Amino acid sequence: VTAPRTPSLDDLIAARAVAVIGASRDPGRIGGRPIDFLRRAGFEGRLYPVNAKYAEVQGLPCYPSVTALPEPIDLAVIAVPAKEVAAVLGACAARGAKGAIVYTSGFAETGQDGQALQEELTRAAREHGLRIIGPNCQGLAALHRRLNLSFSSALLDTGAPGSVGLVAQSGAVGGMLASLLQERGIGLSHWFSTGNEADVDLAECIEFLAGDAATRVVGAYVENVRDGRRLLRALAAARAAAKPVVLLRAGRSAQGARAAASHTGALAGRNAVTAALLRDAAAIEVTEIGDLLDHVYLLARVAPPSSPRVGIVSNSGGLGVIMADTCADLGLEVPPLPAAAQDRLRTVLPAFGATGNPVDTTAQLLADHSLIGRSLAAVLDVADVDAVVVALSMVNRLYPVARIVDEVVRVARAATKPVLAVWTAAAPEGAERLQSGGVPVFTDASGCLRALAAACRWASTPRPAAPPSDGPLEPDRARAARALIDAAGGGVLDEHASKSALRLYGVPAAEERLVTTAAEAVAAADALGYPVALKACASRIAHKSDHGLVRLGLGTAAAVAAVAGDLGERLRVSFPDVAARFLVQRMAPPGGIEMVLGSQRDPAFGPVVMVGLGGIFVEHLRDVAFAAAPLDREAARRLVQSLRAAPLLQGARGRPPLDDEALAEALVALARFAVDLQDRVREVDVNPIVVLPRGQGVLAVDALVVAD
Amino acid sequence: VTAPRTPSLDDLIAARAVAVIGASRDPGRIGGRPIDFLRRAGFEGRLYPVNAKYAEVQGLPCYPSVTALPEPIDLAVIAVPAKEVAAVLGACAARGAKGAIVYTSGFAETGQDGQALQEELTRAAREHGLRIIGPNCQGLAALHRRLNLSFSSALLDTGAPGSVGLVAQSGAVGGMLASLLQERGIGLSHWFSTGNEADVDLAECIEFLAGDAATRVVGAYVENVRDGRRLLRALAAARAAAKPVVLLRAGRSAQGARAAASHTGALAGRNAVTAALLRDAAAIEVTEIGDLLDHVYLLARVAPPSSPRVGIVSNSGGLGVIMADTCADLGLEVPPLPAAAQDRLRTVLPAFGATGNPVDTTAQLLADHSLIGRSLAAVLDVADVDAVVVALSMVNRLYPVARIVDEVVRVARAATKPVLAVWTAAAPEGAERLQSGGVPVFTDASGCLRALAAACRWASTPRPAAPPSDGPLEPDRARAARALIDAAGGGVLDEHASKSALRLYGVPAAEERLVTTAAEAVAAADALGYPVALKACASRIAHKSDHGLVRLGLGTAAAVAAVAGDLGERLRVSFPDVAARFLVQRMAPPGGIEMVLGSQRDPAFGPVVMVGLGGIFVEHLRDVAFAAAPLDREAARRLVQSLRAAPLLQGARGRPPLDDEALAEALVALARFAVDLQDRVREVDVNPIVVLPRGQGVLAVDALVVAD
Repeated sequence: VTAPRTPSLDDLIAARAVAVIGASRDPGRIGGRPIDFLRRAGFEGRLYPVNAKYAEVQGLPCYPSVTALPEPIDLAVIAVPAKEVAAVLGACAARGAKGAIVYTSGFAETGQDGQALQEELTRAAREHGLRIIGPNCQGLAALHRRLNLSFSSALLDTGAPGSVGLVAQSGAVGGMLASLLQERGIGLSHWFSTGNEADVDLAECIEFLAGDAATRVVGAYVENVRDGRRLLRALAAARAAAKPVVLLRAGRSAQGARAAASHTGALAGRNAVTAALLRDAAAIEVTEIGDLLDHVYLLARVAPPSSPRVGIVSNSGGLGVIMADTCADLGLEVPPLPAAAQDRLRTVLPAFGATGNPVDTTAQLLADHSLIGRSLAAVLDVADVDAVVVALSMVNRLYPVARIVDEVVRVARAATKPVLAVWTAAAPEGAERLQSGGVPVFTDASGCLRALAAACRWASTPRPAAPPSDGPLEPDRARAARALIDAAGGGVLDEHASKSALRLYGVPAAEERLVTTAAEAVAAADALGYPVALKACASRIAHKSDHGLVRLGLGTAAAVAAVAGDLGERLRVSFPDVAARFLVQRMAPPGGIEMVLGSQRDPAFGPVVMVGLGGIFVEHLRDVAFAAAPLDREAARRLVQSLRAAPLLQGARGRPPLDDEALAEALVALARFAVDLQDRVREVDVNPIVVLPRGQGVLAVDALVVAD
Repeated sequence: VTAPRTPSLDDLIAARAVAVIGASRDPGRIGGRPIDFLRRAGFEGRLYPVNAKYAEVQGLPCYPSVTALPEPIDLAVIAVPAKEVAAVLGACAARGAKGAIVYTSGFAETGQDGQALQEELTRAAREHGLRIIGPNCQGLAALHRRLNLSFSSALLDTGAPGSVGLVAQSGAVGGMLASLLQERGIGLSHWFSTGNEADVDLAECIEFLAGDAATRVVGAYVENVRDGRRLLRALAAARAAAKPVVLLRAGRSAQGARAAASHTGALAGRNAVTAALLRDAAAIEVTEIGDLLDHVYLLARVAPPSSPRVGIVSNSGGLGVIMADTCADLGLEVPPLPAAAQDRLRTVLPAFGATGNPVDTTAQLLADHSLIGRSLAAVLDVADVDAVVVALSMVNRLYPVARIVDEVVRVARAATKPVLAVWTAAAPEGAERLQSGGVPVFTDASGCLRALAAACRWASTPRPAAPPSDGPLEPDRARAARALIDAAGGGVLDEHASKSALRLYGVPAAEERLVTTAAEAVAAADALGYPVALKACASRIAHKSDHGLVRLGLGTAAAVAAVAGDLGERLRVSFPDVAARFLVQRMAPPGGIEMVLGSQRDPAFGPVVMVGLGGIFVEHLRDVAFAAAPLDREAARRLVQSLRAAPLLQGARGRPPLDDEALAEALVALARFAVDLQDRVREVDVNPIVVLPRGQGVLAVDALVVAD
């Protein structure tokens, strides 16, 4: 006997028999909408209203209970009070249901009692092998299957199914997005409101859409990343399937997170880390609703070119200039047109028109509508142009709007490159005519160009390689590091123990000796070679340099002896219960620069590493980059390269180039350490790590491991 | 006899008798439009078409020439071929005209021949004491005076005059802005298309609007800042009159500047400097057309609060979260509401609504439209809230749209704080109803919040103090510096001469001696005290350290002697024609950080100073700030404070605080130097200048003065 397979979203969406439990006779009420919507959608399976109060609901026979249904069901929609949900789930499972969509609110989003109810619901679902969407959600719609099980008023009229999949952690936002996309003629493939995500989460929906044949683009509204690794896997699957995922993430700020908490009962992850990891996974992150819509719209309508050379054709020179600047801001090139193309344009345009790119037809377009089509055709024929934006401004009732638009449509239809239109004009019928003619149209030039730039960036992102394995590669090494942490008794490890643990993984540190007396210190310094640094070594004392417990550049035995005495005295006075232990450390050779490496265990994403400019600049210049651990050498190199300070490693102002390769290697080592010891290590801070001239490696000068 | 006063824009706009030269019978043609527009506007003065071809134009008697007119004229509109314009100007002046609006193109924007024609036009105007708008412009409109002298089709229907003044260096962009603002119910006070700006420029128009009683807000489209100082004065006048100026500047990027050049024949100024100076002058700079419109719209409709505490009321929790994040991005606070306000909201909202701020009415608004008004009133009553944004999403045909909107309008009208509406909903009639009810409405939440943030920032900007005087404060000092430059023969001054000139103005530099032999070097080092630096001193050799011609930290006479010998040898080999001159310089004491100071002569703005993080970080971290010179101590402090690295000066990581005051003083001194010597000095680069611990001052370690 094999254990029954856990149903997938595919299984739920293949439902042929659906029960709506808590069915309402009023198609405007929550329990009435899915019945109304399902019938409007033309669902070809069987639909069973369940409500003990009615014999008939919206013209369908209504059943007093799930048990009383005439046949087994595949999927249930549940709109009964929160306390009854768990029991209803059991009944559904008994009638063969593979999943349930729970609209009911009053669960984790309302506090402790609700949290307990949600846990009960989760247990019931797991016990019965049922998948759950929600609770506190607005359902889902699988439009190519005519399955519309939502109560969002945005899904009342869905129009023809299309290629955009939407997933939202807020039903209202999901509805708003659906409604505004539909207004722009965009059809949806699927729509998910995931609610409290007791079971099915955003990541699973994205993974499903990545594998769905009808979906070409995914739009997502995210308030709470529950399982970051799963989300990264889903994004990798989407990237592998060449489906862009555009993501609007809210709760990025403290005040946003506070608002999100009152809204969904969830905490927002840390923003910089999350943003970096999502970007790394080729997600297209936006921060505005308008951008989410523009990006999804563009990606649903055109195949983005990977190189970003843009032709601009406008009837206003100024608008062309503004757009050329915006292109520059966004990294989109607006190449000057070759002489032959300019000659051709000169035969088309009036003498005062511009032929260079942006092309300016001037207001002469008022007198001759063919100018726009002929200019567009000339620019499309230029090999160095990958996409063309036609921007029409102030084409008001004095202009032959329909004829101008039809020219654009005619040429765009024949084109093999994307043609986008910007319509910043008073006559809205022009935009509608472009849209219905099949030319994607934007009312905001910047919004259009931001979407184009993001699409091009996405198209040129390499498909991610398989990440390195998660398991410890060398169990002995992991065991040894664990033993060091155990020996230190966990908590904050002192500098010496921290470096020892990291050294096991191949993070190089300055050579040092642990001593307890001035005489030992001098002996150690003699052995290491001068100059040396002398530091108190105690995990309990934070900010040692503030207490005068760190002394650098000691050049003689006498200096070492004197400073060791002084440090001992300071310890006795300020920290009487701290044992006098000192680190004698060989000073790093000159010519390097100070960087910082770190790792932390992110609540959503697990172990994450960081590299940045170190020393006194860490805090104020915030030139840091993050990546999920583990990572390979190539990813580590890319991370280092992404720093603003990266060119300093190549040798600035006549300095020698530095050992960036050794820095990348140390980063890979730290990442492996963070992964292997993720059950024990909360945080690692290597600051500074000195990057020496090329060939001389890197040296961790200070380090701190924080264990559980 | 007093010389006749040069007419001002006020004089032009007060015109009672206007001639249109090159008048057309077709009201759709350039020479026909102003006649049509002026009559539509209800102009109460006299209007004279001039064209030798017609006896009558659009129902008015037409005259063969200006000379033939029955009375003197105040203002002429000129639409005759470029070659005839100068002669026509003379004829107009002879008939008493104070100014002319020259529509005609074919001047500086078309190349050298056009440039010559434009110079001829400028000469004629100056000779006759005429003011010129244009050439190559689309005219002006002074709507409160019913004077509409444009041919922009956007001004065909201007609606009621209002409080927004628009100035544009592109007629097409100016028309687009006018048309899109009118669509949002915004009336204009004045509209200027300045064209090639042979005489009246953008700055003069802004200065005029600053003094115009009808104007409350100025919107400007800028491609080319001709006289930067004049623009700064105009902006200061607007700030003093409490009139915000919102500015969309194009040609910021290389590809934008190239496009602008092909459009107007003008070069774009350097972007970072321009942006910094405009920001300093309280201009609100935007980079998108949509932002320009949103900003002007908001400022025309509400008095911006200076503190940015925002209340958010929405019918979608998710939309509230997104907006709270956007507020955080923009520096707008969304304060949690006090307990009493939350208690009041709990009596209004359903249990699952959010009362904290953002306030979420939930979709319950569908059933009870009064929720929105009662929530809005509760939030408006909170003392800690300065403005409220009501965001309605997806209020579609299922909702009682009119009743919801009327609730918002009713409460907003009674409010003493600004109420803004965001309408991201499918039913456009709601937005229209809000607008006609007097509530400013935006279709994009981010656009609304960006405008609000900019308005608040503007309202809290202190009115600028009078800038320091431009003339040399101490003529002797200026003379002495000039003598040093003359002695060096101009061009690039060597390090020693550069520092000497700067020292005269009070920029402190490390103590140093200029020597020519190893023996002199040792004597100088003995006198200065060890350690010293030794450098070759020759203006001809750039990047001395790349040639091994800079040696730091020489601790003994023997080292100085050896290095002096070595430098001499290197010079002989690599630069045989450079005299062996060396600088012996006392090393700066430890504990400081390297900053950079600089000045440059900006083609548009004149002398400008810069301060930034120095050393190897200058180039890659680009942490620099600019200001117009001269500047006072307070402005210098603010400039230093604006750096990301500013906290480093306060002492980072247990380091002592540094002498930021001395740095500000050096900046003031350098600015004065740049102003006094602006006729000779092109550029100054003080890099690095070491900022020592507080009380110890700053020391310029290297410096370069580039003279003409």
